[in-house]
Amino acid sequence: MRATDIIIKKRGTFVTDKDGNRKLVGAQPNTKEEIKFMIKGCTDGSIPDYQISAWLMAIFFNGMTFEETGYLTDEMLHSGDVLNFHENGANKDIIYVDKHSTGGVGDKISLPLAAIVAACRLHDPMMSGRALGHTGGTLDKLDSIEGFRTALPSETFIKMVNEIGYSMIGQTEKIAPADKKLYALRDVTGTVESVPLITASILSKKIAEGSDGLVFDVKYGNGAFMKSTSDAEILASFLVNTSKAMGKKASALITNMNTPLGNKIGNFLEIEETIECLEGKGPEDVMTLTYALGAEMLVMAGLAPDTDKAVAMCKDAVQSGNALKKFLENTAAQGGDTKKLLDEVGKRRSQFKTELYASKDGYISIEAFKCGMAGVILGVGRSKTTDPVCADAGIILNARTGDFVHSGDLIMEIFGKNTECLEPAKQLLESAVTYTDSKPESNPLIFKKI
Amino acid sequence: MRATDIIIKKRGTFVTDKDGNRKLVGAQPNTKEEIKFMIKGCTDGSIPDYQISAWLMAIFFNGMTFEETGYLTDEMLHSGDVLNFHENGANKDIIYVDKHSTGGVGDKISLPLAAIVAACRLHDPMMSGRALGHTGGTLDKLDSIEGFRTALPSETFIKMVNEIGYSMIGQTEKIAPADKKLYALRDVTGTVESVPLITASILSKKIAEGSDGLVFDVKYGNGAFMKSTSDAEILASFLVNTSKAMGKKASALITNMNTPLGNKIGNFLEIEETIECLEGKGPEDVMTLTYALGAEMLVMAGLAPDTDKAVAMCKDAVQSGNALKKFLENTAAQGGDTKKLLDEVGKRRSQFKTELYASKDGYISIEAFKCGMAGVILGVGRSKTTDPVCADAGIILNARTGDFVHSGDLIMEIFGKNTECLEPAKQLLESAVTYTDSKPESNPLIFKKI
Repeated sequence: MRATDIIIKKRGTFVTDKDGNRKLVGAQPNTKEEIKFMIKGCTDGSIPDYQISAWLMAIFFNGMTFEETGYLTDEMLHSGDVLNFHENGANKDIIYVDKHSTGGVGDKISLPLAAIVAACRLHDPMMSGRALGHTGGTLDKLDSIEGFRTALPSETFIKMVNEIGYSMIGQTEKIAPADKKLYALRDVTGTVESVPLITASILSKKIAEGSDGLVFDVKYGNGAFMKSTSDAEILASFLVNTSKAMGKKASALITNMNTPLGNKIGNFLEIEETIECLEGKGPEDVMTLTYALGAEMLVMAGLAPDTDKAVAMCKDAVQSGNALKKFLENTAAQGGDTKKLLDEVGKRRSQFKTELYASKDGYISIEAFKCGMAGVILGVGRSKTTDPVCADAGIILNARTGDFVHSGDLIMEIFGKNTECLEPAKQLLESAVTYTDSKPESNPLIFKKI
Repeated sequence: MRATDIIIKKRGTFVTDKDGNRKLVGAQPNTKEEIKFMIKGCTDGSIPDYQISAWLMAIFFNGMTFEETGYLTDEMLHSGDVLNFHENGANKDIIYVDKHSTGGVGDKISLPLAAIVAACRLHDPMMSGRALGHTGGTLDKLDSIEGFRTALPSETFIKMVNEIGYSMIGQTEKIAPADKKLYALRDVTGTVESVPLITASILSKKIAEGSDGLVFDVKYGNGAFMKSTSDAEILASFLVNTSKAMGKKASALITNMNTPLGNKIGNFLEIEETIECLEGKGPEDVMTLTYALGAEMLVMAGLAPDTDKAVAMCKDAVQSGNALKKFLENTAAQGGDTKKLLDEVGKRRSQFKTELYASKDGYISIEAFKCGMAGVILGVGRSKTTDPVCADAGIILNARTGDFVHSGDLIMEIFGKNTECLEPAKQLLESAVTYTDSKPESNPLIFKKI
């Protein structure tokens, strides 16, 4: 087997017709063995990077079938550790289910969601990521809770999921090392935005956490990786079909990320909003999406007969206080200081702050992407993986997309990591707000289920 | 300037339409500066090979304009030495013209051609290549002449071209080193068959030899790199237009390589056929093509007013014996033993030989590609650049495509580098011959002029 032949097979061959039009035709799917050969060679270094990157570019142009994407995911997955909750026939009655979001601004859904579904007896092994670019990261939010540890040994993680119902940790170096190698190469060779490659990257890490089912929250809009609903639909269908091809239960919601989710953007600020949600005081959009995703998970796990019943179970978990109790139980189990946390709610703010007021009367729209980039300036997020973040930085939205404001109304409270960052962030946030005379047409929060 | 951005510009961006069709659109030509950045970075190692190969694959899919191809050629050309016959205003009345063939089987045209046009007072600085795969190499043919040196210092080469009219040497390591690097990368990353990349590779080496004009012999057919006339037309138009964009005179003939050229395939055998051509006893196809290419060159150099007059001049050069005299003058000047050479004609054959006889009555067709591959087995050519070749190996065709033969007629005399190679080569040659009841339709030798 030669890497060059595998590249050529994926690339196709030129044929010139009588009119002198030269076209590439006849590209064929790579087999399981060919994909294994490439990924193994990439990971162990036996195939040089220049052949891998030529292959990635051919995939970028010609795509991959669901089957190929499944083979690719499987190879990347098995390049590292894979958790197994069912080892030696264990827990055979439990269907482990997790949610994955493609990332957004103010997207703290994982936090209330995990507590709510765990309060409904679901088992959720949740491995999360860190903030990068305009999107936030669950691990950075959890780090703002004093004492909270997101790096736990696998045994502890498995034990917590089985006993408490969920645990939230980061992906270790041992999870899908092939993805780390491939992603680094894609990042510098213009091969990031390929749906099958994105799918394999997400799934190889997500399946490694040991779930039996996955619910995907695929975002569309200016604050999402996929800008249009049709782009998001394609990614969602790849994620769902490839997961199924790999023997997992799977479904996806395509949801709006044109404007930030909830009223708070930040690390501790989103922990705070999580507690508000679990106290039944959460913003409508966050609650609606949390319940919708939670219902998907409960039905998938066989814990509810249908979506309506599942939503009712989620609401009940909040109203009864069980979900908040579960959140605090998990926080304590992962080393977090729950007393201090509850004391800080509504009070813990960065001392470096400013405010943004409406410049005129009108209905406003707030652009998610610019809020996310302002977050990077303030210290909520980071431009590169090695940047530090600030726990207390963030933005409180006192008005939301679709609200009518009067000139001079307070729209945003802005908290930064230092004084210098406030003005540039404020300017960017000012440009994130547009005013219209009539109420802006609202895009649906939940566009479609796949 | 970042390599990643240059790759992405050439690659384009995905757009998904309402029907869910995801397409790559909006690829843009790279600028002169971007192409310079990539080639410089490739040559000096500052841009890693994995970025170069991703860029090459994006070019493979999206092509290059004539303008981009010109920029690419120019950068590759100037990565090494470039000969200049007009330095300090020298030789301003001379238009130096060379011919380049895309390679074939039995294609010894360069040898009689250079002598004929030089006898018509043309100046031809000819840099040639070696045999590889099924195609032969002019340098390997010249090496079969005892004493002939194809490695000469530039000063000697220039002096010979100016004094004798032509000189035939190989490309040194200092000619277009960027092409060597790029070609090695293309060879293992599935990016060989790209017309703009092929064009830049050919021209960067060809223009370095210092010609003012180039006549291309672009082959089509089973023994050619481009299989169809439409493929060949596209390459020809890239070669001609890019040469013109770089300030050179240029034209191309698209010619047939479905069956070997001439009656003899080999190294010394093709030197022998060259002498036959220059003695006025050459096979019709070789003479026709040589005169046609020679006429192109003479008109381009301003030495003949039109093609008909130019063909007459070429014929006269042969009939008068001036062309043969020129050939022997050049051979002697490059160190060849002309007396020994003339003594060997018709006699020098490998001792390892066999014969192929017609297996039935009928009109025959002889496939060029299989003859070329049989040549590799016999020792005429090589599979990799480091293989040695055998001067005395080869094939004499006693019948040609279109001839009627009777069962038992001698079709081919086969000469090998040793005894072992004879049988496998003979079997391959047997499969190269097909018999038909009616005369096969003949493809035109010269299909088109570009």
